[in-house]
Amino acid sequence: MTNTQLTLVQIDNYGPWTVTPEPRREADLQTLQSRLYADISQFVGNRDGYVFFTRFDNMIAVTNGLDLDDHALLQESVGNRYPVTLSLGVATGKTPVQALSDATSIIQQAGSAQDQNRREILDGRVIDDDHRTDEDVQIAHFDVIDATDVYTDELNAFDSFIEIEQGYAELMRYMRLAHDSLSFFVGGDNIIAVCPDLGHEEYADAIEHVEETADVSLRVGVGRGSTPQPAGMAAKHALEQGRADGSRVVLEW
Amino acid sequence: MTNTQLTLVQIDNYGPWTVTPEPRREADLQTLQSRLYADISQFVGNRDGYVFFTRFDNMIAVTNGLDLDDHALLQESVGNRYPVTLSLGVATGKTPVQALSDATSIIQQAGSAQDQNRREILDGRVIDDDHRTDEDVQIAHFDVIDATDVYTDELNAFDSFIEIEQGYAELMRYMRLAHDSLSFFVGGDNIIAVCPDLGHEEYADAIEHVEETADVSLRVGVGRGSTPQPAGMAAKHALEQGRADGSRVVLEW
Amino acid sequence: MTNTQLTLVQIDNYGPWTVTPEPRREADLQTLQSRLYADISQFVGNRDGYVFFTRFDNMIAVTNGLDLDDHALLQESVGNRYPVTLSLGVATGKTPVQALSDATSIIQQAGSAQDQNRREILDGRVIDDDHRTDEDVQIAHFDVIDATDVYTDELNAFDSFIEIEQGYAELMRYMRLAHDSLSFFVGGDNIIAVCPDLGHEEYADAIEHVEETADVSLRVGVGRGSTPQPAGMAAKHALEQGRADGSRVVLEW
Amino acid sequence: MTNTQLTLVQIDNYGPWTVTPEPRREADLQTLQSRLYADISQFVGNRDGYVFFTRFDNMIAVTNGLDLDDHALLQESVGNRYPVTLSLGVATGKTPVQALSDATSIIQQAGSAQDQNRREILDGRVIDDDHRTDEDVQIAHFDVIDATDVYTDELNAFDSFIEIEQGYAELMRYMRLAHDSLSFFVGGDNIIAVCPDLGHEEYADAIEHVEETADVSLRVGVGRGSTPQPAGMAAKHALEQGRADGSRVVLEW
Repeated sequence: MTNTQLTLVQIDNYGPWTVTPEPRREADLQTLQSRLYADISQFVGNRDGYVFFTRFDNMIAVTNGLDLDDHALLQESVGNRYPVTLSLGVATGKTPVQALSDATSIIQQAGSAQDQNRREILDGRVIDDDHRTDEDVQIAHFDVIDATDVYTDELNAFDSFIEIEQGYAELMRYMRLAHDSLSFFVGGDNIIAVCPDLGHEEYADAIEHVEETADVSLRVGVGRGSTPQPAGMAAKHALEQGRADGSRVVLEW
Repeated sequence: MTNTQLTLVQIDNYGPWTVTPEPRREADLQTLQSRLYADISQFVGNRDGYVFFTRFDNMIAVTNGLDLDDHALLQESVGNRYPVTLSLGVATGKTPVQALSDATSIIQQAGSAQDQNRREILDGRVIDDDHRTDEDVQIAHFDVIDATDVYTDELNAFDSFIEIEQGYAELMRYMRLAHDSLSFFVGGDNIIAVCPDLGHEEYADAIEHVEETADVSLRVGVGRGSTPQPAGMAAKHALEQGRADGSRVVLEW
Repeated sequence: MTNTQLTLVQIDNYGPWTVTPEPRREADLQTLQSRLYADISQFVGNRDGYVFFTRFDNMIAVTNGLDLDDHALLQESVGNRYPVTLSLGVATGKTPVQALSDATSIIQQAGSAQDQNRREILDGRVIDDDHRTDEDVQIAHFDVIDATDVYTDELNAFDSFIEIEQGYAELMRYMRLAHDSLSFFVGGDNIIAVCPDLGHEEYADAIEHVEETADVSLRVGVGRGSTPQPAGMAAKHALEQGRADGSRVVLEW
Repeated sequence: MTNTQLTLVQIDNYGPWTVTPEPRREADLQTLQSRLYADISQFVGNRDGYVFFTRFDNMIAVTNGLDLDDHALLQESVGNRYPVTLSLGVATGKTPVQALSDATSIIQQAGSAQDQNRREILDGRVIDDDHRTDEDVQIAHFDVIDATDVYTDELNAFDSFIEIEQGYAELMRYMRLAHDSLSFFVGGDNIIAVCPDLGHEEYADAIEHVEETADVSLRVGVGRGSTPQPAGMAAKHALEQGRADGSRVVLEW
């Protein structure tokens, strides 16, 4: 049974900041957002967590293995180095969806994302070390079959992106509704999902649904672990195996 | 009449690199991709261009104002500082879609994105200074009306993202098909589109389509310029005006 | 009694790389070096260590609290994201000088800094958890008295730098020879030294020596801890106290 | 005859900021400083200028080729992305020392480096395009002969650094006093000097002085250009030639 620990990372009052006193140069906003994400990715990743850029002003992290002191340190370090600050809500749950819902509530109870008096909230709870297991986190790594042949080298860059984007949007929606999972675009033709305790059947179902609905063919490798990094690395190896032997769904356990 | 100069930025042989000799840590890939994008955004942005992260391994830049020497310098600088290299295809056209199609062809003629012998391609052509005008670039900046109230503070973070993502996907597809424009998610609830010479009617049509199809209410500000930065800044100001007076479509000219 | 754990961080074969096949743009080398240092500073600093940029191609880290797995992860992460790789030698000792000497030997035994076949060495040993104490690390934080008044606002920027640099060079040399300490310029008018178990007398002696030899007036705050971060933070607080009450040497214990 | 354009880059009120309301984590300050330097290095370097980190809170840039709009853009971009702001003083002169002295005065007239009301000063003047020549900038690139053999692989890392540091401090002082030049440590065993119109004799004199005074053997390559980048690249090539044929002073013109 999975026990996912999720952190909602929200930049405080970011929307208003981007246009105060005047709209800021888009290139600077893009640089700020992507470097902030990169820094959080290094911090969380070096503690075996995963972070997804999501909307950039709201990022979602899988933080099994990080305690509240780690979160406080991240918050302090960002506050020391950026012109913006972070609020962090941490929650755990049997499904990623439930955990994220609770993490979101924690931050919202402290005020709106655009409340200028709400700054550097840090609240929630992490999994006690005694209750952690090697099956707490399940990560699925999807990619598009033959994306380079079918899309990148044939269509123009944007049309191939629209095609892949459609598959991604459909997968994201379906995994959310049918399988209580959170799926994230991570670049290229790669989608990573944080899942509850799903098996071969559920993944095959999701792939079939996306193929029928959006005409995009996916493959998936799935791994488990006490933290996201080994779970995600097992998923990557499973995906490599699928590429080698043609399997559409490979579970690495 | 617009004359968009587009650059397709493609990381050479990136997919294979990410799994050679073994799959690399996802946190490192995410950091590498987002920092590379940030660097390109600074380089191009400081020359008044715009870059969109798109898929991260394929980025799309609007480069009116940059010449081929600028492109060569970006390529050299990235090659000096990253473990990966870039290929750049540059083309111009009356519509962004046409320009991108040509830019894509230029790179593909030199080899596949996953051809390990294709490295640091730089080809194409830029607009002669004599032919540049203040109407070359048209930028539209969309955002979701009341996104914070309706989505961020009410729904959980991911469900609000799925909602916004749906509107974004639909806008991207529709602007591509109906109006020969390229639209990009740039974080938060913001979408920026690079457009041909569109007017009030076309933008109102796109907004109406997204509202009917995806139930997401958008507002848009539009600007023009000889380069993306002033065009985009005019669009931001137009959007601010729309927020202030309730207009759904504001053209800043 | 102190027990300093030092890591020598050496970029593999860096000198030759900077001129192969042609000399690389200086701005790119400067960017690469300083960002690599920043990344290592975050990684080590987030685990309560300190890193000094030293020569940039050879950096010195105080790593009490980091184990060899942490070092391996740093090495892997840099290898995934930079065009250069790191070798790491780790050693412990009653004085920082002895520890660094051993750390240097460890790397040199594996080959020259410019041996193109020597890559990603990781060797040495860390302090067993059972043997760690709250007095393992002693950090002294020096600054120049009235630097802004006397130097920055009076002399031109470079002449003030030469003055401060002289005091720094003399302090570095003297702390090394007389007190077995390693001192590093960390920006502004700040010098941080990693010391064995020194007391008020030794610090007063060093300050007096620099004042007589280089005519630069220094103040120092000193702290202790099981890791560099709390020791260094105590030193910063001690220095603030000295600024407030005029003391030249403040020990925070 | 040289005509050096220098920019003093000063972080506004940085010292007080680092300890307000409490001393900030040293690792964060180091990261902030070195990344800020890296960003400025990219910005200026991509316009063919050179920047030296100097004290990090005061950096010195050779900006021939950049106009005041470029400086304003740098200032705006840093202000958008960092928790600190920059003041910039720009001046030109027949010697780098004179130019820097004037650039320093420009900033000081607006207030002290620690005046909390002095923010984002931008003042001074640049060389008119009509007056620019290919001999405006003279760059000398020094390195230590056989540094790796003699120092890095033989002595421990810190003692080798002290040795090299001595040579560097002496060169910096001597080039300042005897030859009106500004010399900067740029990492490894490399020193870059910005010089007035010096010839073979002056460079040989400086090398001899350092050898006699500090027992460090230097080699130097020198280049000229209308901007720092081609001048510095010519200097690098000259240095490579010196390494190949044993010359101690090579002028690339």
